[in-house]
Amino acid sequence: MIIPVKWTDEGVNMLDQRLLPTEEKWLMLKTYNDVAAGIRDMVVRGAPAIGVSAAYGVALGAKQFVGTNVVDLEDELDYVCEVLGKTRPTAVNLFWAIDRMKRTFHKAKAEGRSISEIKQTLLQDAKDIHEEDIESQRLIAQFGGELIEDNSTVLTHCNAGALATGGVWGTALGVIRGAVNQGKTISVIADETRPYMQGARLTAWELLQDQIPVRLITDSMSGHVMKNGDVQAVVVGSDRIAANGDVANKIGTYMVAVLARRHGIPFYVAAPLSTVDLNCPTGDQIPIEERDIREITHVKDIQLAPEGIDVSNYAFDVTPNDLITAIITEKGVARAPYVESLKNMFNE
Amino acid sequence: MIIPVKWTDEGVNMLDQRLLPTEEKWLMLKTYNDVAAGIRDMVVRGAPAIGVSAAYGVALGAKQFVGTNVVDLEDELDYVCEVLGKTRPTAVNLFWAIDRMKRTFHKAKAEGRSISEIKQTLLQDAKDIHEEDIESQRLIAQFGGELIEDNSTVLTHCNAGALATGGVWGTALGVIRGAVNQGKTISVIADETRPYMQGARLTAWELLQDQIPVRLITDSMSGHVMKNGDVQAVVVGSDRIAANGDVANKIGTYMVAVLARRHGIPFYVAAPLSTVDLNCPTGDQIPIEERDIREITHVKDIQLAPEGIDVSNYAFDVTPNDLITAIITEKGVARAPYVESLKNMFNE
Repeated sequence: MIIPVKWTDEGVNMLDQRLLPTEEKWLMLKTYNDVAAGIRDMVVRGAPAIGVSAAYGVALGAKQFVGTNVVDLEDELDYVCEVLGKTRPTAVNLFWAIDRMKRTFHKAKAEGRSISEIKQTLLQDAKDIHEEDIESQRLIAQFGGELIEDNSTVLTHCNAGALATGGVWGTALGVIRGAVNQGKTISVIADETRPYMQGARLTAWELLQDQIPVRLITDSMSGHVMKNGDVQAVVVGSDRIAANGDVANKIGTYMVAVLARRHGIPFYVAAPLSTVDLNCPTGDQIPIEERDIREITHVKDIQLAPEGIDVSNYAFDVTPNDLITAIITEKGVARAPYVESLKNMFNE
Repeated sequence: MIIPVKWTDEGVNMLDQRLLPTEEKWLMLKTYNDVAAGIRDMVVRGAPAIGVSAAYGVALGAKQFVGTNVVDLEDELDYVCEVLGKTRPTAVNLFWAIDRMKRTFHKAKAEGRSISEIKQTLLQDAKDIHEEDIESQRLIAQFGGELIEDNSTVLTHCNAGALATGGVWGTALGVIRGAVNQGKTISVIADETRPYMQGARLTAWELLQDQIPVRLITDSMSGHVMKNGDVQAVVVGSDRIAANGDVANKIGTYMVAVLARRHGIPFYVAAPLSTVDLNCPTGDQIPIEERDIREITHVKDIQLAPEGIDVSNYAFDVTPNDLITAIITEKGVARAPYVESLKNMFNE
């Protein structure tokens, strides 16, 4: 059972995902700055996991506070939230978790709680966010698993597994695990997911641990395997879902969605409602992170491209809602028109 | 001016493309076995370059022959051709060049030429194949350049440049060079082309040498840049074109073609007629090479995927003719229906 982020009395314990699959090393992050660096440097990645980590980061920032005045604590937490909020721009779960922790603080403050009580309340809420995240995935696994037919091969892109979440199930891999738990025979094709290789390094590693059959391909092979009839469904996670159902996810997701459409293969997105941003009307408003070009030009110290080459390193792309068969959340399965179906899920 | 394969009195001199872009090293291949190994191990790659190299390999095999009987020479050349023919299965230029050299031998034998004369004739024909290849590309550059609009950004996949051919122009990069020579302002987006990184290592290197602006992306970004409106045309090479215009080319080409269609971007294939296999009715009959999975699981000694993982390493895919706007050859521009337009080019 993979839980990549854990609260301890010493701080936040994170599995260093940069070293997988060859090394399993845990880092103890003792300050909110450590947590912010852990998110920015991709010790932890995946939208739900970033949300859980940020919540613990806020709790850690409160724990580090040594003053006696609740107004000073408020100032300090504003700063902590600003630092955590600047780590990665696309995954909305980061901002969702920070906002929820802020609301929890304000409620506790308004209730006249002591600083010690507020610290305790914030920690409890971070733990709740973590538990709710795992519970959401359990439900996503159940609802999504029902959509996958027996004896299917499911293609997935990037890692939307336990490693990308609070743990245990994962979102896209949760759907696959859900189908397997329902007694279905499922195998997986994993896109390696350049440049950061989350598919090769993380998805392959997770599925091997669960003994779910997995075949690794380069991102450029997904069209070929679909054309060969090797793929019966695609399931991916998401970093942000706009109100209209446009989905930001790892770069290359859009390409897979276009190919799935050509081949008549259902394309499912699995994500908790904390990934849905109703304030974002369409995918056009989702900021797309661009990362260090060295991720593309080098693998560790091995140079793959000529010196001085111009490179773009978009970390995400947006898949328009018309290519998405369904969005699987902890509240059930949303289908087009997503403006209504997603909004209804928040009102249930 | 890049000419990756050269005949010398010592043997075939090849630029070792495995070491680019960080090292420019030339290998002197003194036997036909060396040439076969050079093709198999990808010292040289790209369909036209493989054809030229194989022709020189046959000439080298003849040169190595020390007997005095023309029937023994024929046996020896049959064996040489068998060894060279087993190096790579997809690029038809390999078999085209070998067949042409065989025909040249049989003609010289039927004419009662001496062994020394036959050796000389074979070498001359290999040199002719090389010169014709360069001349074909010059014409492809001219015809193809006319199809590219001024101020365009052209996306290309893999390396179909001078390095992939007998030299100087290239096929897909020939079209780009042709457009530039016609006074147009052209920039290029190069897919890095996993797993062998021909885009990052070779296309980027070639275009930097020519000072043609080039931006490198991962294969998974081609959909995103098309969606952004950054691409006005796609040009790729080919390893084999079936009689109906289905195109085998580097894995990922099919994906790019599907994306180009979605975005209404013209998708051009540039290849000499030696790449067209009229004996192959459709793309379904083209054998797709599968290569060592270590190309995907490792970069040099760095392990990217877990031990024991199942991997597919298809080197090529087939793009169906309905996705291809035009095929640019040395005889002009072929358009659908390709069964007729390609056949007509052989009859001109």
